[in-house]
Amino acid sequence: MRLHGYFRSSAAFRVRIALNLKGVSVEHAFRHLRRNEQIAPDYLALNPQGQVPTFETDSGDVLVQSLAIIQWLDETFPDPPLMPGNSLRRARIMAFALSIAADIHPVQNLKVLNRLRSMGHDEKTVMEWAAWINRDGLAASEKLIAEEAGPFAFGAAPTLADLCLVPQMYNARRFGVDVTAFPRLLIAEKAALALPAFDRALPQNQPDAEN
Amino acid sequence: MRLHGYFRSSAAFRVRIALNLKGVSVEHAFRHLRRNEQIAPDYLALNPQGQVPTFETDSGDVLVQSLAIIQWLDETFPDPPLMPGNSLRRARIMAFALSIAADIHPVQNLKVLNRLRSMGHDEKTVMEWAAWINRDGLAASEKLIAEEAGPFAFGAAPTLADLCLVPQMYNARRFGVDVTAFPRLLIAEKAALALPAFDRALPQNQPDAEN
Repeated sequence: MRLHGYFRSSAAFRVRIALNLKGVSVEHAFRHLRRNEQIAPDYLALNPQGQVPTFETDSGDVLVQSLAIIQWLDETFPDPPLMPGNSLRRARIMAFALSIAADIHPVQNLKVLNRLRSMGHDEKTVMEWAAWINRDGLAASEKLIAEEAGPFAFGAAPTLADLCLVPQMYNARRFGVDVTAFPRLLIAEKAALALPAFDRALPQNQPDAEN
Repeated sequence: MRLHGYFRSSAAFRVRIALNLKGVSVEHAFRHLRRNEQIAPDYLALNPQGQVPTFETDSGDVLVQSLAIIQWLDETFPDPPLMPGNSLRRARIMAFALSIAADIHPVQNLKVLNRLRSMGHDEKTVMEWAAWINRDGLAASEKLIAEEAGPFAFGAAPTLADLCLVPQMYNARRFGVDVTAFPRLLIAEKAALALPAFDRALPQNQPDAEN
């Protein structure tokens, strides 16, 4: 199995955490987004969206979209489960994951920020945009788990929710967001980063990491 | 059960289709987004993100995020299945759904377009932004099912993929995108709209519809 990623991609970061939690080893290939390696013809043949991550299974099937890859991993390697519980619980976990993976991340990815730059906005305005959607979105995510027992987003073990949360908190800080406004998210993040599966997946711990 | 929606919300549109396909009747409540009814205190108490849709179950549980609501509906009312097939098939369906629900829709929703307006962009530029992300995103979605037998996105029956596709095609046209560039998506859309479950869910067929 092979994961095509980029150290700083929060979508690839989610998949790295899932693989680590499942104890599944894969080959890692790196695509440098700022050098546009994700739009090279050989990569577009794998992933027509020109995004990371892309996942290749042992049977040569190609999967795209981090949450779809994680769903496949969770069904193929069920232990530990990343979407545990009854339907209501699973819907809550999925809603939290989407509050990040749909409502925050795509609005601040490189493609959107580059579009803002091409419209003539300076770097300060572009960073303000990224900070805005992180601040606004994480405030909503915080409310979704405010009543949830911790320490993780949903109880005593990490779920898909935490796989989305930790990379987004990393992004939020990078864009200058004051994350102390989200005490419940910080509790979940702290519990997650105490686990080697999360720590080893951090951008700075990847072979392709740069300053 | 009660669905809080808005006729033109493509996320609410997805849930309406799911309910129709499952043959599940619910009470409909309407939140007028352009009148900011989604940020009224009573609604924020239900849905802290101030988004539609919100779904209330018969036991009084509140669910948010269209794909999480649809997941709950699909597990609670399994016939017909919206995520059929083996893990690989399910991952492909989910990836297509996310290519729309994560990569297109959140980048062109009212909140983002209003942010662009507040940055001083005129209506032409805002519409160009919305058209750009629809055109770019749907081109990728098209490639994800280019090799799939039709007529639906994934085979002979509608899936979660079609629930995301039909509302996004509606949006794309509204923003002036030339959808003839996406012949495979048009085949799937046509098959879907021939079903009453999709037709009855169209924005113009809702009680709160306006011109």
